[in-house]
Amino acid sequence: MTTQPTQLTQEEISNIDAYWRACNYLAAGMIYLRDNPLLREPLKIEHVKSRLLGHWGSSPGLSFTYIHLNRLINKYDLNAIFLAGPGHGAPGVLGPVYLEGAYSEIYPNKSEDEHGMRQFFKEFSFPGGIGSHCTPETPGSIHEGGELGYSVSHAFGAAYDNPDLIVAVVVGDGESETAPLATSWHSNKFLNPIRDGAVLPILHLNGYKINNPTILSRIPHEELENLFKGYGWTPYFVEGSDPDTMHQAMAVTMEQCVLEIRRIQQEARSSGQPVRPRWPMIVLRSPKGWTGPKEVDGKKVEGFWRAHQVPLGNVRDTPEHFKQLEDWLRSYKPEELFDRDGRLLPELKALAPKGARRMSANPHANGGLLRKALHMPDCREYAAVVTKPGTTTAENTRPLGKFLRDIMSLNMHNFRVFGPDENSSNKLGNVYEVSKKTWLADYLPEDADGGELSPDGRVMEMLSEHTLEGWLEGYLLTGRHGFFSTYEAFVHVIDSMFNQHAKWLAMSKEVAWRAPVSSLNLLITSTVWRQDHNGFTHQDPGFLDVVVNKSPAVTRIYLPPDVNCLLTIANHCLNSTNYINVIVCDKQKHLQFLDMDAAIKHCTKGIGIWGWASNDQGVEPDLVIASAGDIPTKEALAAVVLLRENFPELKIRFINVVDLYKLTPESEHPHGLSDKDFDSLFTLDKPILFNFHGYPWLIHRLAYRRNNHKNLHVRGYKEKGSINTPLELAIQNEIDRFSLVIDAINRVPALRVAGAHVKESMRDMQIECRNYAYEHGTDLPEVDNWVWPY
Amino acid sequence: MTTQPTQLTQEEISNIDAYWRACNYLAAGMIYLRDNPLLREPLKIEHVKSRLLGHWGSSPGLSFTYIHLNRLINKYDLNAIFLAGPGHGAPGVLGPVYLEGAYSEIYPNKSEDEHGMRQFFKEFSFPGGIGSHCTPETPGSIHEGGELGYSVSHAFGAAYDNPDLIVAVVVGDGESETAPLATSWHSNKFLNPIRDGAVLPILHLNGYKINNPTILSRIPHEELENLFKGYGWTPYFVEGSDPDTMHQAMAVTMEQCVLEIRRIQQEARSSGQPVRPRWPMIVLRSPKGWTGPKEVDGKKVEGFWRAHQVPLGNVRDTPEHFKQLEDWLRSYKPEELFDRDGRLLPELKALAPKGARRMSANPHANGGLLRKALHMPDCREYAAVVTKPGTTTAENTRPLGKFLRDIMSLNMHNFRVFGPDENSSNKLGNVYEVSKKTWLADYLPEDADGGELSPDGRVMEMLSEHTLEGWLEGYLLTGRHGFFSTYEAFVHVIDSMFNQHAKWLAMSKEVAWRAPVSSLNLLITSTVWRQDHNGFTHQDPGFLDVVVNKSPAVTRIYLPPDVNCLLTIANHCLNSTNYINVIVCDKQKHLQFLDMDAAIKHCTKGIGIWGWASNDQGVEPDLVIASAGDIPTKEALAAVVLLRENFPELKIRFINVVDLYKLTPESEHPHGLSDKDFDSLFTLDKPILFNFHGYPWLIHRLAYRRNNHKNLHVRGYKEKGSINTPLELAIQNEIDRFSLVIDAINRVPALRVAGAHVKESMRDMQIECRNYAYEHGTDLPEVDNWVWPY
Repeated sequence: MTTQPTQLTQEEISNIDAYWRACNYLAAGMIYLRDNPLLREPLKIEHVKSRLLGHWGSSPGLSFTYIHLNRLINKYDLNAIFLAGPGHGAPGVLGPVYLEGAYSEIYPNKSEDEHGMRQFFKEFSFPGGIGSHCTPETPGSIHEGGELGYSVSHAFGAAYDNPDLIVAVVVGDGESETAPLATSWHSNKFLNPIRDGAVLPILHLNGYKINNPTILSRIPHEELENLFKGYGWTPYFVEGSDPDTMHQAMAVTMEQCVLEIRRIQQEARSSGQPVRPRWPMIVLRSPKGWTGPKEVDGKKVEGFWRAHQVPLGNVRDTPEHFKQLEDWLRSYKPEELFDRDGRLLPELKALAPKGARRMSANPHANGGLLRKALHMPDCREYAAVVTKPGTTTAENTRPLGKFLRDIMSLNMHNFRVFGPDENSSNKLGNVYEVSKKTWLADYLPEDADGGELSPDGRVMEMLSEHTLEGWLEGYLLTGRHGFFSTYEAFVHVIDSMFNQHAKWLAMSKEVAWRAPVSSLNLLITSTVWRQDHNGFTHQDPGFLDVVVNKSPAVTRIYLPPDVNCLLTIANHCLNSTNYINVIVCDKQKHLQFLDMDAAIKHCTKGIGIWGWASNDQGVEPDLVIASAGDIPTKEALAAVVLLRENFPELKIRFINVVDLYKLTPESEHPHGLSDKDFDSLFTLDKPILFNFHGYPWLIHRLAYRRNNHKNLHVRGYKEKGSINTPLELAIQNEIDRFSLVIDAINRVPALRVAGAHVKESMRDMQIECRNYAYEHGTDLPEVDNWVWPY
Repeated sequence: MTTQPTQLTQEEISNIDAYWRACNYLAAGMIYLRDNPLLREPLKIEHVKSRLLGHWGSSPGLSFTYIHLNRLINKYDLNAIFLAGPGHGAPGVLGPVYLEGAYSEIYPNKSEDEHGMRQFFKEFSFPGGIGSHCTPETPGSIHEGGELGYSVSHAFGAAYDNPDLIVAVVVGDGESETAPLATSWHSNKFLNPIRDGAVLPILHLNGYKINNPTILSRIPHEELENLFKGYGWTPYFVEGSDPDTMHQAMAVTMEQCVLEIRRIQQEARSSGQPVRPRWPMIVLRSPKGWTGPKEVDGKKVEGFWRAHQVPLGNVRDTPEHFKQLEDWLRSYKPEELFDRDGRLLPELKALAPKGARRMSANPHANGGLLRKALHMPDCREYAAVVTKPGTTTAENTRPLGKFLRDIMSLNMHNFRVFGPDENSSNKLGNVYEVSKKTWLADYLPEDADGGELSPDGRVMEMLSEHTLEGWLEGYLLTGRHGFFSTYEAFVHVIDSMFNQHAKWLAMSKEVAWRAPVSSLNLLITSTVWRQDHNGFTHQDPGFLDVVVNKSPAVTRIYLPPDVNCLLTIANHCLNSTNYINVIVCDKQKHLQFLDMDAAIKHCTKGIGIWGWASNDQGVEPDLVIASAGDIPTKEALAAVVLLRENFPELKIRFINVVDLYKLTPESEHPHGLSDKDFDSLFTLDKPILFNFHGYPWLIHRLAYRRNNHKNLHVRGYKEKGSINTPLELAIQNEIDRFSLVIDAINRVPALRVAGAHVKESMRDMQIECRNYAYEHGTDLPEVDNWVWPY
């Protein structure tokens, strides 16, 4: 076995540099050229795109790294994929991807010849074409990088449970300033060298962002080295600008890293001791816009922020720029790189890996190809016994924890559970019976009793929603499965990551060669209505308002009201692909409504009348009461009882909504009810009281086109909260039973006069509840312990 | 001048420990007791709260730090404030705050006696009482800490431009795992030791989160030290559990840090050389739940995660727990700490600072008290000349940059501009004429030409929206002013910070003693409609959907359509207090509509008919066309012209909306129009086409209660985007002029038949635009260069 890296020969340097020149030529060509792609004729104005778009700055460093990895893939038969963290880095990736043939295989009109190259250049950052990030259209990409900060967490997600994989991730020094990137370096405490693959970060210090230097490029070497040693890495430095020297340095350093990775893995795997190694990483310090124009109009460009985007502007109008562009493009000597047809010369082509070893064709980067459906136990076996609706209570999430435990035990190689230090708090702790929390940092004796830690754990807990979400995305995009639970108020921390993943999925669905990946399953728990004691900062059900903005092709929202509904919904979600399933369900004890058969039937429909809670059988109701969510459902049911006690003649229909998109027209979302079905549930003209888990206007946003929208009155959370009891919090936001009775009296014409004294007594009850809570610290027992009486 | 810290005498240790025992007693009392606060009688079940809430774990470490700071405040007459980063840390802060008298001064019913202490205990985490975070009700707090991660950035925000202030910030080791915290350590590259105050972080390694160890407590000492040296700090370690030893170590170490801060400041200030020092910080490693129950039911509690929340549960039902509770509480010997009235003994009281030197009474932590209104130039002086509406173009944000420049030059001590590496990109670069970008990291020669960097800069740029937002919040909460601009799609990165700040402001407005602070002014630019070239990931106007969920008392949204509207809106926002003003305006060249007088008039109303674009004078219109946002307004106006050309008889009213909340009922938001005013604008029954900047359903969410809502048809962004031209992006989302004409024909009965061929020609035009764009890469010139023709 090789243990020492070898120096490159001069010929190897020369070849690798030629290959790199081809990459850089392609990157520059993508930004500038719409014709004359091989510069066979003198450059003319009409060969240049009229709108110059794209980013040159980080491209040379990206392709430099890519092709040095190629060398080692060939030398060691590595199984590797490549993630480009720097913003707008696509030209530096698309170049080598095109050169190794994968691009032309997938997109035959971008063939490996002059015609194909012309198309390849033109479509870049061009209307109807492809973008300047590594979008889903990019072969080999699982990381778009449109929004910065997630490259390292995505890389780790890809490496988990892929023991043979090396995930190379170039990290931009701009990106490194983002919050998510800064904490994701600690992912190394969650990677097991026996079971998992390796992540090889290449921190690309090209020194500048759009208009500013980067922090990490402007601190002393000693601080930089300390920082990464402090993060638990062994940093190796490759610094300079002379290509030949840099090729030699990069080749040796990267080989050193690969050998170190192999040594670490071999030691751990042969000894069975998964101690945390100090994994190698590379710090590549090279000029921004390397090999591009050194100066433009007397201003420094190469090695400065001016190289960030298009280094030479106005080339069609400025003859000096035009001349400089042609000189620059010709400096790569395309005539020495491509044959007469426009094909890369065979001796250069030989440097690229072959077949699926090409990073652009590695199936891990099209994870749906490798995805195997989960082995699933029958969710019915975890059912809560419900003999009579609304009479018993249970913690809604606890049986789900048992279900997840058994899913875990059936899928110990491709399923993980994620949560920010909250799986126990969220009552999912049964999962630890079969798999502990992944932990590769230090252990103390006390961990043995209650720590639930293990290097072999498959439950991922770190107090960073960003890192968890990034890991999970990387894990799913490489063909595996996962389940993420998090506190409702703080899921907003990853709003933007949700947005970006939803966009990735929506775009991927339109890319024919991308195989479907498992859905991202997100359980939102510790919800607003039981954050009475944590107070106002912990009360925010607004993530759903973010979700509904994204493509209906990829978004699903469920609000199971009890244990059995949660189980069947989770079962459904874990079997699905290419969605983001958002499940909202609280962890505390709540009333149970449906037995398992009824739950499956109800959740399959997604919305339905609860006959046992309605008294409109055979007639048109006077009032429709609808609910979505656990406490809102309990309060709505209690309101039904109060109304029936006070107004025995009143005919009430009770509807529960699990699948929130049922409310929206079928033209807007595939789950939307037809107007006919909606009308048959909600009537054409009767008052509707809708008691909703979230902010009330979301229901209006979904249902405003419905025929009976004018009679739809929604209650929900409206930012009224401090330290309270659950009931008092409900009262302040008017989702409580008493407020709903008052609402009903105000809206059902027949009740208005007769109901005046009832309204008074409801208000008295609210005051009594508050007084009791403020005196005793708990809710009035008869209200708190209320059960369905009929 | 003292240059060496001194050791504590045994008497000093004994006193400080007694004070600390009083703090710990209060923290435990808050969690458990509702009566018998001084334990004058044997503890009975009825003295204990029935619902035990609150978090014990980090409290002892917080008060330990607080009172050691107190000692140095007295010794050196320090001007200091205290931020508690650890989650649910309030008991550790409220204790010392109460002991130094500030609490009783503000809340007289929590007096410094037995009666007051009883109230003080009872209200903690009790319905109608106060929370377990340092909420706005907490004297001395500018950092609630409900959502973790922002303590260090808040601390830096407070320190900027406060040269005499020391901001002590305790950072939880759980919190340290969050993304925002991890990058905020780099804030030291943006703090000038001459002009700014000092931040003294105390990283509190108590080892555990809710149910897990923390990463930073489980890495070797050498890695931990490297990490913080790498972040640019000088870490000092105070580690142990024996109180006396720890008092001595903390006293000496903290004094060392204070002396080092003073030395650094003196050297920089006397030399005038603002080089970046390696500021001191403290790593305090102490047991979680320090001094609490060591074991409960045979399980380790002190020094383990079980100490996180309530260390002894079920005390009312479990006699052993009850006994253990009483023993624990009595271990602090309250009878030796408080006099017969329940007042802290005078010799202990003497340890607290006096008056405004108390961290609980420092005016910097009630920044509105110190706030001075900005000196403002006249915004009219920056006006774009508009002689005829809709005929000239300008970059909307550039004049704002000049306005900000001159505001800056008039307020060089209490105003800063914030942006993530984007102020130049956002065309606000004129501000650099008077103040550069703050930069205390290394300089290179090339910075001289285009770097715009200076240690004295007042423009804050780091590629971390989290850090910038945290700095700005800290700056505002300590009584200063700021302006933050950021890319629209990526403002979602700080959704959760927006939510938390909005909650802070809403709560603060109900706290009588909190003086109003400057509004947080957020310019959202590089908006969706000009992200045609950056593609799908950069297209997300959904931040407004997050904003509207928060309290109407603190949220404001403006969509100025042109230069002059933006100027007057910005002028208004910068003069306001206690709001979050969200301004949406793109940076690119757009049509100009209103001269300055008209802009002021229009923006003061917030919504209005543009008579010059309407032809319904004196009659009821057949159609209302409304717009909000720059490109939607241009396209809506172009649609008006197409409709008038094709249907000369058609009477169109054109409405532009700047203040988005005008659309909502006045009962829902103070800016809401009355129904009467709304009806007079939008009619009772005519079709309305609303061309909106954001997701279309937001308009329905605001206006669903309006009389004419059934005729309201909204166009906006609906997740249709890739690489496009601006017009093609508009067409895909149907906000373009041609789509609007088709919409009008479909909705105005009189046009339906006559309009069939017009619809055809509109569709042809859309195809022609697309073909042109896909061929040329730019929009059809006559459409792109369209101006208002009448």
